[in-house]
Amino acid sequence: MALIIQKYGGTSVGTIEKLRAVARRVIKCYQQGNQMVVVLSAMAGQTDDLIRLAHKITDNPDLRELDVLMSTGEQVSVALLAMAIKSMGHDARSLLGSQVAIYTDQLYGKARIHEIETDRMTRELEQGTILAVAGFQGLNDNGDITTLGRGGSDTTAVALAASLKADVCEIFTDVDGVYTTDPNVCPKARKLAIISYDEMLEMASLGAKVLEIRSVEFAKKYNVPIHVRSTFTNERGTMVVAETKNMEKVLVSGVTYSKNEARVTIRKVPDRPGISFKIFRPIFESGIVVDMIVQNTSEKGITDLTFTVPKSDYRKTIGLVSEVASKIGAKEVLGDENIAKVSVIGVGMRSHAGVAQNMFEVLGKENINISLISTSEIKISCVIEEKYTELAVRVLHKAFGLDYEQRQD
Amino acid sequence: MALIIQKYGGTSVGTIEKLRAVARRVIKCYQQGNQMVVVLSAMAGQTDDLIRLAHKITDNPDLRELDVLMSTGEQVSVALLAMAIKSMGHDARSLLGSQVAIYTDQLYGKARIHEIETDRMTRELEQGTILAVAGFQGLNDNGDITTLGRGGSDTTAVALAASLKADVCEIFTDVDGVYTTDPNVCPKARKLAIISYDEMLEMASLGAKVLEIRSVEFAKKYNVPIHVRSTFTNERGTMVVAETKNMEKVLVSGVTYSKNEARVTIRKVPDRPGISFKIFRPIFESGIVVDMIVQNTSEKGITDLTFTVPKSDYRKTIGLVSEVASKIGAKEVLGDENIAKVSVIGVGMRSHAGVAQNMFEVLGKENINISLISTSEIKISCVIEEKYTELAVRVLHKAFGLDYEQRQD
Repeated sequence: MALIIQKYGGTSVGTIEKLRAVARRVIKCYQQGNQMVVVLSAMAGQTDDLIRLAHKITDNPDLRELDVLMSTGEQVSVALLAMAIKSMGHDARSLLGSQVAIYTDQLYGKARIHEIETDRMTRELEQGTILAVAGFQGLNDNGDITTLGRGGSDTTAVALAASLKADVCEIFTDVDGVYTTDPNVCPKARKLAIISYDEMLEMASLGAKVLEIRSVEFAKKYNVPIHVRSTFTNERGTMVVAETKNMEKVLVSGVTYSKNEARVTIRKVPDRPGISFKIFRPIFESGIVVDMIVQNTSEKGITDLTFTVPKSDYRKTIGLVSEVASKIGAKEVLGDENIAKVSVIGVGMRSHAGVAQNMFEVLGKENINISLISTSEIKISCVIEEKYTELAVRVLHKAFGLDYEQRQD
Repeated sequence: MALIIQKYGGTSVGTIEKLRAVARRVIKCYQQGNQMVVVLSAMAGQTDDLIRLAHKITDNPDLRELDVLMSTGEQVSVALLAMAIKSMGHDARSLLGSQVAIYTDQLYGKARIHEIETDRMTRELEQGTILAVAGFQGLNDNGDITTLGRGGSDTTAVALAASLKADVCEIFTDVDGVYTTDPNVCPKARKLAIISYDEMLEMASLGAKVLEIRSVEFAKKYNVPIHVRSTFTNERGTMVVAETKNMEKVLVSGVTYSKNEARVTIRKVPDRPGISFKIFRPIFESGIVVDMIVQNTSEKGITDLTFTVPKSDYRKTIGLVSEVASKIGAKEVLGDENIAKVSVIGVGMRSHAGVAQNMFEVLGKENINISLISTSEIKISCVIEEKYTELAVRVLHKAFGLDYEQRQD
C-alpha cells in the first residue's frame, strides 16, 4: 500500500463534469489499494473573479482580507470533490489549510510554509478516508488565513508529500509532462521521461510553465519525487527527481526561450569602484528585475555595461539609465526590444565541456548573431535577435540530439 | 461608549455599491464613539448559487461538505466589508466562525450554538478595530465547519450580543421594522415601535419573515434588545424586547395570516385509545409537519378529527390518511386546499378576556365562516375560506384598533 498525493489544477476541476472525472480517477487509484490525499486549486477562473471583486471595492485591497477572500476558491473545490467522492460510495473528507493545519509565516499573499501537522490526516487516512485538501492556503500564528501566491497549490502538494512521507506526488495538469522544448515552436519536441530537480528549476524559471518554481525547490529539499502528468489521459508523464549518475550521460535535456526581455547597453562608462551600484540603484529601487548583466573588461578605464530587463519595464529603464549616464559621464545609452533569450539546459554539462562551443557553432552556422551570453553550472543562455527565436530553438534541439526521431532512450 | 452589534442581510450587501454603503454606515456609528461588531450574511443569491452547484454534483450532497461549501458565502462578504472599511481609513478585521470561535453542536446544516469565545473579539475591540464577523457559521468539537441553517446570521448576531454583553443588537433588513400586519394586504398597517419577544415569536412563526425565529428565542433567553430596522433609511425601526407591564394595555399587537396550509378531516373515527397515534404515525414518519389538530368530543364512541398540513404535502397526506382510515373503520376522509389561517396576537390577552369573542364576532359580521380554531396564551388562530383572507385581515386590523388613523401612541 502506497501513500499518494495528487494535485489537480484549476483547469482540471474547471467544470462539474471535470470534477466528477477527477473523483473517478481518485477512486480508481484508491481502489488499487493506495491511501489518497488530493490537493485542489480553485476552479478555473474563480481566483480571477475573486480578485476582480476585491478590486471593485478598492484599488489597493488589504492583504489579510484578500487572503480571506481568495481562500474561498479552494474551499469550494474541496467541498465539491468530497461530495462527489462520497456520492460515488467512498469515504471522503475536505480539509482546509487551517484544519490540516498548514502553518505559514505572516506574509499575506505569498506566505511560506513552516510546518504541517500530520496527526489528523494520518488518523483519517488510516481509517480509509480519502482526503481533499485545499491547496494554496495556510494559517499563521495569529490564526489568520494566509495564501501561498500563484501556483501555491503545487507547493501545498509537495509539502504534504514531504511531511506525510508520501511515496509520490502526482501533479495533474493540462499538459502531459515536461517537454524538451515548446512543441508549438518545435514539432519534434518530445516528452521527457525523467528530469532532475535542478534542470526543472532552470526550465521553470526560463518559461516552461508546468510546475511552480517554489514547489520544485521544496521537492528538492525534501527529496519528494514528483510525477507531472495529464488529467485527461492515463499515460505516464515526467518524473522530477534527484539527480542520478545516469542523467549525466545526457548533455542537454531541454531548450527554452523567452521573448519577454529587452536589452540595455551603456557605452563608455568610466570604470570606477561603485559605478555599477550608481547605475543599478534607481532600477532596483523601482522594483525592476534585472536578468543578465555583462560587463566587458575595462580598456583605459572605460567599459561597456549591458543587461536585460522585462520588456514591460524597458522604456522606464531607458529613462532611469539615461539620467544616471549623463551624471557619471558615460557616452551613450543604447537599447533593443527585439531580442530573445535561448537556453540549453542539462546536468550533463557539469561533467562535459564543449556544450557552449557547440551551441555557438550551431547558431553561427545559421548566421544568428549572439549579443549576450550567460552561463550557470547546468545552463547556457544566449541573447539573439527576436526574429531568429524559433529557428534557433529548432536547430539547437536537433543539434543536441533531442529531436523525436533521434530518441535513444 | 456603547458596544453595538449590527447585522446586515443578503440584500443589504447584495452589490459592491451596497456593501460600500454598509461600510459607511458602520463607520458613522463607530465615529460616534461606539465599539462595532458587524455580522454579515452572504451576498444575495450567493447561497442559492452554492446550493445549485452542490446539487449539480449529487442530489443528496454530504451535509458536512455542504457546510464547508456554504460557509464560503459569508467569508466573501466579511472579507469585502473589512477591505471596504480599511480603504476608508479605519481599522477593520474579518473573523470567520472558526476564528471567533463560535462553537456549535454536530448538526451540519442546522447547528446550534453552544459557546462563543470572546477573548479575541474583546481584545480587538479594545484596540479600536471594527470587526466583521461571518454570520451563519460555527465550528464543532472536531474542528469542522457547521452552519446554523437559513436565517442563521440573525442568530449569530444575537448570540454575539449576548456573549459580548452588547448594548443593542441591530438587525438591518430590507423592511423598516415589524408591522401590525402585512402592508400589502392592509394599507393601514403601521410599524410597531416596540414588541415583546413572545409576540415576535408568534409573528415570526406565523409568517412575518422579519427575524429568524431561533434568534428571537435566543434574544429572549439572554434578554438581548433587538432593533429591527432598514438598511436604506436612518429611521428607527421596531424594538424587540422583554415584556413590560405597559405592553399589556394593548390587547392585540398584530394580525397575521398564512395561505400555506390545507385541511384534512377524518369523519366518524372510532374513538379508541391509540387511534390518534395510528392516524398520525405515517404522516410524521413522512416528515410532514402537522400544524393545528382539533378533535371534537366523542359522541357514542365516534369522533371527527381535523388537522392542517402544508399545502405542498396535502395530496400525500390525503393518500396516507385514506389508507389508515379504511383500516380503522373511519367513515370518510375530506380535505380542503382552499383555506387560510388568520391570527391575532398580543400579550394583552393574558390579562384580558373577550378577545376571542370579539374576533369571532368581527368575522361573523362579514359572513366569514370559521372552520377551525386554535388558541395559545397570546394568540388566537382561525381557519377560514382562503378567498376571505384579505378581508378578514383588514376587518380584524381595524376592529382591534391597529389602523394607522387610530394610532394612539
